Amino acid sequence: MTGSTTPRAPRVTVWNENVHETTEPGVRARYPDGIHGEIAAAVAEHVPDATVRTATLADPEHGLTEEVLAATDVLTWWGHAAHDRVDDAVVERVQRHVLGGMGLVVLHSGHFSKIFKALMGTTCALDWRGGHDRELVWTVDPTHPIAEGVPSPLIIPEQEMYGEFFDIPAPDELVFISSFSGGEVFRSGCTFRRGRGRIFYFSPGDQEYPVYHHPDVRRVVANGVRWAEQRGVPRRAPELHRRATGWYEERER
Amino acid sequence: MTGSTTPRAPRVTVWNENVHETTEPGVRARYPDGIHGEIAAAVAEHVPDATVRTATLADPEHGLTEEVLAATDVLTWWGHAAHDRVDDAVVERVQRHVLGGMGLVVLHSGHFSKIFKALMGTTCALDWRGGHDRELVWTVDPTHPIAEGVPSPLIIPEQEMYGEFFDIPAPDELVFISSFSGGEVFRSGCTFRRGRGRIFYFSPGDQEYPVYHHPDVRRVVANGVRWAEQRGVPRRAPELHRRATGWYEERER
Amino acid sequence: MTGSTTPRAPRVTVWNENVHETTEPGVRARYPDGIHGEIAAAVAEHVPDATVRTATLADPEHGLTEEVLAATDVLTWWGHAAHDRVDDAVVERVQRHVLGGMGLVVLHSGHFSKIFKALMGTTCALDWRGGHDRELVWTVDPTHPIAEGVPSPLIIPEQEMYGEFFDIPAPDELVFISSFSGGEVFRSGCTFRRGRGRIFYFSPGDQEYPVYHHPDVRRVVANGVRWAEQRGVPRRAPELHRRATGWYEERER
Amino acid sequence: MTGSTTPRAPRVTVWNENVHETTEPGVRARYPDGIHGEIAAAVAEHVPDATVRTATLADPEHGLTEEVLAATDVLTWWGHAAHDRVDDAVVERVQRHVLGGMGLVVLHSGHFSKIFKALMGTTCALDWRGGHDRELVWTVDPTHPIAEGVPSPLIIPEQEMYGEFFDIPAPDELVFISSFSGGEVFRSGCTFRRGRGRIFYFSPGDQEYPVYHHPDVRRVVANGVRWAEQRGVPRRAPELHRRATGWYEERER
Repeated sequence: MTGSTTPRAPRVTVWNENVHETTEPGVRARYPDGIHGEIAAAVAEHVPDATVRTATLADPEHGLTEEVLAATDVLTWWGHAAHDRVDDAVVERVQRHVLGGMGLVVLHSGHFSKIFKALMGTTCALDWRGGHDRELVWTVDPTHPIAEGVPSPLIIPEQEMYGEFFDIPAPDELVFISSFSGGEVFRSGCTFRRGRGRIFYFSPGDQEYPVYHHPDVRRVVANGVRWAEQRGVPRRAPELHRRATGWYEERER
Repeated sequence: MTGSTTPRAPRVTVWNENVHETTEPGVRARYPDGIHGEIAAAVAEHVPDATVRTATLADPEHGLTEEVLAATDVLTWWGHAAHDRVDDAVVERVQRHVLGGMGLVVLHSGHFSKIFKALMGTTCALDWRGGHDRELVWTVDPTHPIAEGVPSPLIIPEQEMYGEFFDIPAPDELVFISSFSGGEVFRSGCTFRRGRGRIFYFSPGDQEYPVYHHPDVRRVVANGVRWAEQRGVPRRAPELHRRATGWYEERER
Repeated sequence: MTGSTTPRAPRVTVWNENVHETTEPGVRARYPDGIHGEIAAAVAEHVPDATVRTATLADPEHGLTEEVLAATDVLTWWGHAAHDRVDDAVVERVQRHVLGGMGLVVLHSGHFSKIFKALMGTTCALDWRGGHDRELVWTVDPTHPIAEGVPSPLIIPEQEMYGEFFDIPAPDELVFISSFSGGEVFRSGCTFRRGRGRIFYFSPGDQEYPVYHHPDVRRVVANGVRWAEQRGVPRRAPELHRRATGWYEERER
Repeated sequence: MTGSTTPRAPRVTVWNENVHETTEPGVRARYPDGIHGEIAAAVAEHVPDATVRTATLADPEHGLTEEVLAATDVLTWWGHAAHDRVDDAVVERVQRHVLGGMGLVVLHSGHFSKIFKALMGTTCALDWRGGHDRELVWTVDPTHPIAEGVPSPLIIPEQEMYGEFFDIPAPDELVFISSFSGGEVFRSGCTFRRGRGRIFYFSPGDQEYPVYHHPDVRRVVANGVRWAEQRGVPRRAPELHRRATGWYEERER
């Protein structure tokens, strides 16, 4: 219970496949430090006590070794072109850490990542269009910490469209709903609890648009990181326990 | 458990304040039989085994006597200009019946009715505009019986805008989300369980637009009536019970 | 929307690993027709219009070929000793059918089946004890069709204990909570929607106790089958769609 | 978003009807400073930066004037014998403040208070027994801040029994489930969001048992206070807004 009173200094790992940035000049111009660099800067800006590192697909074990994950309170995930190149063993490791209490913030096209699909159990399919829509992100849960300080609507002048039906489990909390110029709607900010971990999915963000430079989008990502962090939780996925009758009385002694 | 196998013949009471229709020629022209007449026809069309009656504000006890409610499986509610003229004793009676198992379908401006506010516990406030927006109603829970046979999006060419933040408890099930030409979004189809009763709120529909003539809107309203009906439930609100140790074993004998 | 008015005749496939019954005389004496035989009889008893078939681990493709699943409205699942022997390709096939609209009723030790874990995304771990506890199953959602006709508490004189923490996503609907003589509690009746499919998990039932002969347990299992069935849904998992601006207007023509 | 980084010093008002303590020597002996005194001490113990005041039924306006509520971040509520003597105008004022963002922690027999019933919309009825049961409180949401540092089960040697069916809306988050020696179960720790406010209901606690001296119970109450507090929220219940087309663009200028 002391977690809330002591200063928190969450250890954040920002993961990015970093494929578009290394192969497409336009994307590199938009995100000179990579999308991971921009996400890391957004977290550092709004969570000044955080320790932020980055990791990418090209790193050994994608930069997500057991040691890194054990020292990560919240992992953010961006992927798009190379979901299939993420090693299954790494996905299982990340899933185990999430179920053990590590926070996970999944961004935009990460909806189709192996790790998100494994945690959701569904196809995570959606409708989409690269049509320069304007996206409006409306807060529908104003009590949620992730919505703190975020205008409603949050206005993104140009965006890829993501539309319903979005095949996810009903979220534990629906924080944001987006509309697009074309009339589509999308559950764009959703939380899920899985095992001992907290997951936040936030859909705005694309390699073709400067969305991660948007000050309000940066705030939401950082709020999500802060919300997903749980300092007090020992990193241990739930396990099967055989219990004798009255086992809890034993515990008391 | 036999409810599902025997033919159901839900007894439906369609309530309408019936004020606009009796004071505004334009509304009367649009709804010559009153909004209640149109809702009743929609239910009869899609739930052919239903017994449908109507009741209005001007009726003695607003047509919602103890006898009528006791013989009603599902009540639909439309009100707007005269919420304050609904008698508190009738509101309490309706609430008691809902908590005892009567279904309730609240339509459009009924969000501000005394009965809906009493059941929600919140202000039920929202944003609005009479601006001839086009409304698109998107299904976000395709497994829900209320969405059965309904296209996504359901297109309403002209409508009053209802926008977030809509101050309701998080719905038990979010079935529909709407967008409007102006960019606003709204949780337009929501279910709630209260006591032993089921409640469906559906926002499309206004006295200024011919929304209740729209074939898909009619289907949704009728689906809502069917969903809210629970034949097997004795009409009795939950009560305080003092229980002796092992009372349930007594019951078995 | 006609699904509810036409007679339903759900096609049910009852799956059982059928290992304890074929290797342990005590279990065979308790369930001479196998646990699948008893489950099938319970469904037939309470859903008389159902077409019920059974399938077991030893059948080719475990009896769950594409053809069988395509002709199955609801699949029930019982497994315990041989979860690991269920072929991954069959698990993927079942998951695809559930996401496409097939109902799934997971029973007791099926919480640790590959299919349930894949759909939940969590460990599905729990506490347990083979200690001849009495289990009381309390209804906490009296409006739910699965609770229809079920006494609260439902009393099971002797049972294996399943206790919290049960590592599942927060259920969409919590229908039953159990207590055990030893003082433990368990979320024993839970629903989940995944993709276009409905899932019901019900924990009572074990090879060591005659739980599936209990009249109220049989009723719950049959209610679950009836609830999980969705006649009107085409069997198709959600897919990615690229949408042109205004695509839904095209649809109208 | 700065709320989480700056030290929080929640202003807490502990309300108690204070009737049993002033009329029954046994209760006074158990709670010499009143139940409110004990609750206040528990909050002060675990939320050392909090400013805690108390208020009781006998105070003018029950101690809950507009000024007091405007300066209260979280209100805790204990009542039992005198629910009906709470003035309706005060109840409406408290409800308005909750919907405007004030946290509310409702304890034990407070389930039947006017304010809780008004916010829930249901009867809030339950089963009960004054039978010296042992209560075990099990955590079913280990990621929830209210469960932080709380053993599962939390063991209360002697307690009044509260059992299902508890007529509340399905909670937004179910944190604790209790069992009793008599076999009953109860959703004993529930959260609800209403308007801009957060509500926590926690059932353990009775005037006839020393429950509020229990170290783990005190921790839960304090965790609930901390969770319900929202520093950044302006105290304003949601309101109806008429919006011109494109109103949010105006806002930007």
